[in-house]
Amino acid sequence: MNNNKINVAILGATGSVGQKFIELLSNHPWFNIAELAASDRSAGKKYSEATNWIMQTHLDKNIAEMIVQPCEPKLKSKIVFSALDASVAGEIEEAFAKNGYAVISNARNHRFDEDVPLVIPEINPEHLDLIYHQKFGSGFIVTNPNCSTIGLAMALKPLYDKFEIESVNVVTMQAVSGGGYPGVPSMDIIDNVIPFIGGEEDKMEKEPRKILGQLKNNKIEFADFKISASCNRVAVIDGHTEVVQIKFKNKPIKNEIINAWNNFSSEPQKFNLPFAPMNPVIYLENEKYPQPKLHRNLDKGMAVSIGRLRDCPIFDYKFVLLSHNTIRGAAGGTILIAELLKAKGYLEKYL
Amino acid sequence: MNNNKINVAILGATGSVGQKFIELLSNHPWFNIAELAASDRSAGKKYSEATNWIMQTHLDKNIAEMIVQPCEPKLKSKIVFSALDASVAGEIEEAFAKNGYAVISNARNHRFDEDVPLVIPEINPEHLDLIYHQKFGSGFIVTNPNCSTIGLAMALKPLYDKFEIESVNVVTMQAVSGGGYPGVPSMDIIDNVIPFIGGEEDKMEKEPRKILGQLKNNKIEFADFKISASCNRVAVIDGHTEVVQIKFKNKPIKNEIINAWNNFSSEPQKFNLPFAPMNPVIYLENEKYPQPKLHRNLDKGMAVSIGRLRDCPIFDYKFVLLSHNTIRGAAGGTILIAELLKAKGYLEKYL
Amino acid sequence: MNNNKINVAILGATGSVGQKFIELLSNHPWFNIAELAASDRSAGKKYSEATNWIMQTHLDKNIAEMIVQPCEPKLKSKIVFSALDASVAGEIEEAFAKNGYAVISNARNHRFDEDVPLVIPEINPEHLDLIYHQKFGSGFIVTNPNCSTIGLAMALKPLYDKFEIESVNVVTMQAVSGGGYPGVPSMDIIDNVIPFIGGEEDKMEKEPRKILGQLKNNKIEFADFKISASCNRVAVIDGHTEVVQIKFKNKPIKNEIINAWNNFSSEPQKFNLPFAPMNPVIYLENEKYPQPKLHRNLDKGMAVSIGRLRDCPIFDYKFVLLSHNTIRGAAGGTILIAELLKAKGYLEKYL
Amino acid sequence: MNNNKINVAILGATGSVGQKFIELLSNHPWFNIAELAASDRSAGKKYSEATNWIMQTHLDKNIAEMIVQPCEPKLKSKIVFSALDASVAGEIEEAFAKNGYAVISNARNHRFDEDVPLVIPEINPEHLDLIYHQKFGSGFIVTNPNCSTIGLAMALKPLYDKFEIESVNVVTMQAVSGGGYPGVPSMDIIDNVIPFIGGEEDKMEKEPRKILGQLKNNKIEFADFKISASCNRVAVIDGHTEVVQIKFKNKPIKNEIINAWNNFSSEPQKFNLPFAPMNPVIYLENEKYPQPKLHRNLDKGMAVSIGRLRDCPIFDYKFVLLSHNTIRGAAGGTILIAELLKAKGYLEKYL
Repeated sequence: MNNNKINVAILGATGSVGQKFIELLSNHPWFNIAELAASDRSAGKKYSEATNWIMQTHLDKNIAEMIVQPCEPKLKSKIVFSALDASVAGEIEEAFAKNGYAVISNARNHRFDEDVPLVIPEINPEHLDLIYHQKFGSGFIVTNPNCSTIGLAMALKPLYDKFEIESVNVVTMQAVSGGGYPGVPSMDIIDNVIPFIGGEEDKMEKEPRKILGQLKNNKIEFADFKISASCNRVAVIDGHTEVVQIKFKNKPIKNEIINAWNNFSSEPQKFNLPFAPMNPVIYLENEKYPQPKLHRNLDKGMAVSIGRLRDCPIFDYKFVLLSHNTIRGAAGGTILIAELLKAKGYLEKYL
Repeated sequence: MNNNKINVAILGATGSVGQKFIELLSNHPWFNIAELAASDRSAGKKYSEATNWIMQTHLDKNIAEMIVQPCEPKLKSKIVFSALDASVAGEIEEAFAKNGYAVISNARNHRFDEDVPLVIPEINPEHLDLIYHQKFGSGFIVTNPNCSTIGLAMALKPLYDKFEIESVNVVTMQAVSGGGYPGVPSMDIIDNVIPFIGGEEDKMEKEPRKILGQLKNNKIEFADFKISASCNRVAVIDGHTEVVQIKFKNKPIKNEIINAWNNFSSEPQKFNLPFAPMNPVIYLENEKYPQPKLHRNLDKGMAVSIGRLRDCPIFDYKFVLLSHNTIRGAAGGTILIAELLKAKGYLEKYL
Repeated sequence: MNNNKINVAILGATGSVGQKFIELLSNHPWFNIAELAASDRSAGKKYSEATNWIMQTHLDKNIAEMIVQPCEPKLKSKIVFSALDASVAGEIEEAFAKNGYAVISNARNHRFDEDVPLVIPEINPEHLDLIYHQKFGSGFIVTNPNCSTIGLAMALKPLYDKFEIESVNVVTMQAVSGGGYPGVPSMDIIDNVIPFIGGEEDKMEKEPRKILGQLKNNKIEFADFKISASCNRVAVIDGHTEVVQIKFKNKPIKNEIINAWNNFSSEPQKFNLPFAPMNPVIYLENEKYPQPKLHRNLDKGMAVSIGRLRDCPIFDYKFVLLSHNTIRGAAGGTILIAELLKAKGYLEKYL
Repeated sequence: MNNNKINVAILGATGSVGQKFIELLSNHPWFNIAELAASDRSAGKKYSEATNWIMQTHLDKNIAEMIVQPCEPKLKSKIVFSALDASVAGEIEEAFAKNGYAVISNARNHRFDEDVPLVIPEINPEHLDLIYHQKFGSGFIVTNPNCSTIGLAMALKPLYDKFEIESVNVVTMQAVSGGGYPGVPSMDIIDNVIPFIGGEEDKMEKEPRKILGQLKNNKIEFADFKISASCNRVAVIDGHTEVVQIKFKNKPIKNEIINAWNNFSSEPQKFNLPFAPMNPVIYLENEKYPQPKLHRNLDKGMAVSIGRLRDCPIFDYKFVLLSHNTIRGAAGGTILIAELLKAKGYLEKYL
């Protein structure tokens, strides 16, 4: 029954991001999970035996029975989603790309390679052209940003285009699922806050500037504004909340900002991609919103919620944003990239 | 057996702050809880029947048997701690002051009266002189700041004195006990963050400037720097965590800041007051610190912990601070004011 | 556009159960929310202004604009769902029934009236015949059991029929949403367990015996076995977990029990009712299951999950069950009763 | 300055139980922490570098500087506390005992050796005589029970002696700290219950029967009653809550039970041991008590709290108990054994 669907493989299928890929792709209208690959420890086992399924939906029976493959570029599916851990993703993804695979990755390793696009489909779809100029040979690598970056970049994009940005301050309260599984020990987070997440602040201060950058002569010119990020872990399962302060070059009035968010729409919406949210950014009027428990799942977990836009005594404005870190911020965002690649013809030779 | 102790009364004794006063004063070397007062609903009942005791220590049996008095200025104890709700504190405290009582209050109502000192004993003990010029007549009112203000003001004081401050940005992650009891419903905070606390941001942007202000000609000149505050509620029982960014007029190097904190000491330490922490501010080197669960109780819950001092791309520096909101930030801080008043002779006529 | 649907009203529409009714009925294929009623405090206001919406889905815009009616039997819809608080439900429901309304109630007040059926559609659909013999006159009242009862009764039913039961011991770990809103204060449940829920143990020891009882001569003969219940509140948002021990009159082997559960099916499944789960009871093999976070939403939150069936040194067997307390255990279960009433023709005169 | 104290070593000093030993022994009046030992990974490092300190008090500076030793029987201190993981404790403890060390262990490995006493000082101090008959040669091993066993056994002891017990049913809600560190992942327990703890039910069904057993002819005759245990993990940091049902051979009235608990006192109280609680068992009248957050720290965390004694439709009575799992249930309980050994002269040759 999947004859008309495109076969895909998932690298790192047994971890929490890999599981999320499986959950989200299970009934995908275009893609069919044909192969699962993971570390040598898991390879050769039935998927249900190789993994400790922690998703909130039941594991599909067909997936459960699949035999896990090693993460070697011998898979039949030419399109692979990478949910690999950063400790191994760099080399494995490169090996796949060099052997003619289309690699769409959630790992951080290649995000700042000069010839690798770091993509949020609503923001910089044109960066995908970089894949024609990659060093990897017959295949390519496209990367998805860090989970805490995506919500921020989505909130900034419509403002950056219209009013130019001078500086952005962001303080996050991030969900434990962002730390993978087993990740944050319960003894560390119940009745607690951990005001540190290794490497996260660097990513947040750098990634949005590449994503909002300009593609010129096959290079990305990074966007030119300052970001200061402070990252904290809180006792929330899913959904990163971010307090943002912003100073513009051309300060708009509040309504112009809210309108810019509410009217924001881009290629995923134009192509009506399966994982595209109807409104990528939603402004909520209630002064207590957004909240992870209430809004993380808006529009299949793919929309970014914003609230509390108000004047700031230091910057121009402050506001709060929320996005689902394992859907929009990881597996879902990566799938949306694959859908856009397909819709725009980049995958032709891999089908 | 308490013949040598000073009798005190607690107004609003049945609420969560009132209970904290009782817990902390139970074995106080100077003060004896002689009277408990609360609303008409509770007055006339035994304390154990009037209250739903939620402290983590057992209710003292003598306290349990005390009959709750109405909140009227007919109490025998001339020194009263006010844990009243803001909806009634204004008038009741004023009535007590006018009738010759020394009122040391945790309520917000009179904090910005021109002739009422807003005091953190380590920071502005000299402001207490304002009480000689109050409009209330034979008694006086002294106020304690908001729970989220105290940690911030303590961290700023040694830096303000040495390096002058241009602007301060603070984003808080506040404990549920800050909302009183019953306060935040569990359905609102388990697996959630609430990015709004009514009135809190205004308090944080204003109170530190009065506390750090100069007393001149019986008036407080507010400190002249900008504060921007963003306040959030998280699933923590006790302990407010605050991400702070600071820009100086005279930028110090990191070690100068850390030394200023570690060497900070003031009148409570000089007088060796019972509730004074040995070190009011403690800098922790571990990059994951401070954390509410680990550090809120340092030095009887009266010390402010700081960590993660680092460069900021927008301000000069950023750091994280933590203080216990119901001890240092409420009952404990108010008791320390009373101790200082006693030590410096302000209470002579009320004994 | 709802011309072909049956208009219904919701009494107590502003509370948390009322909100759940609205959320679940929003796209119901048979019923149309035509009227919302609540206390005098809310009557006359727009629903969005009268309520503090705490559901995790957005409030439908049409519902938001509806004007809240008083809870008086002047509503146009003749079928009313009662989400009223027990403090007022008794009289109001009776007034509606006497005035010709079909009342399907989640409140506890009439559950033990001799002529009022207490119904779980999969268990005792035949009890609905009691409504023809009610004292209320032209209308009727049908009641839904307590949230902690439903999962237990569902687990017992297939076993009771086949093997007869001698005694049942149950210890619950119940979600905070079972306490309504605002309900359990966060200070009481974060990092805590409350080993007491007022009235809950009585309900659990009594309700299953009426539900599993026999309708004879227009009376219910209660099922004849002992139940001992111990109820606890834990820091879970939704989903009641119950540790159950059971002694049979005719002790089956384990597989007979598991088969009885997995093969259990009843009238809601036969009529293919919109809210009927495909399998009302699901046995999970993983020794760590069921868990509220993982399994509460199985089959739209209407299925009861069971796991860990094993020998007991004192009873015959022990096992763990889980059911969603606000869906299967409240609004969803009540809607299923309404669907069954409709499917079996009990509502003809109310349409 | 510690010249008069007894030097002790801690095996497995870097884990969470090891840390608790260090925290609790830091100011012990009799014992001095002279050596810390841990796995080869840690041996040779400074303690502060070998461990990730997760206690809520500051790590003592002298301890921080100590060099971690390997877990080999070459330590100078002849009295060793074992906080070793069960995967290695068996052999290491045996090696120490054979080499003349007094080993007081929190590990499970030797608990059911015929010649090893499993001791709760208030219950079976006479079992300590078994050490004179151990196979290990010049040293000995004494073991502390599982954390969930201790509270139960303490509650049963005074009842067992007076009224004889026929059967005991217990359902636990256990804190995450019982799982060690890192232990339970936060993604598994926030907004969740895990109704399974590997091996725990077996321990609870067996250990109390050895502890309450009779020492006859150098053998323990196990107590003769049935226990059924069901163990659950909940989102609590410290403190195991247990719902207990009990059937007696000679059924007492309620007050006899409460008196038996409140009057319970034993050798630790008689010798006034430093870690002995004044009242080992405390009955609380409030129907909502005991609760982990409120009562786990009663009497230094060494007292067991009980509440809600009431009739049971199946057993004679049911009640709820609470005990601190890492203090009374692990490090604190083990230290109390050492104190009793010292007080009764068992340690003479090891000093």
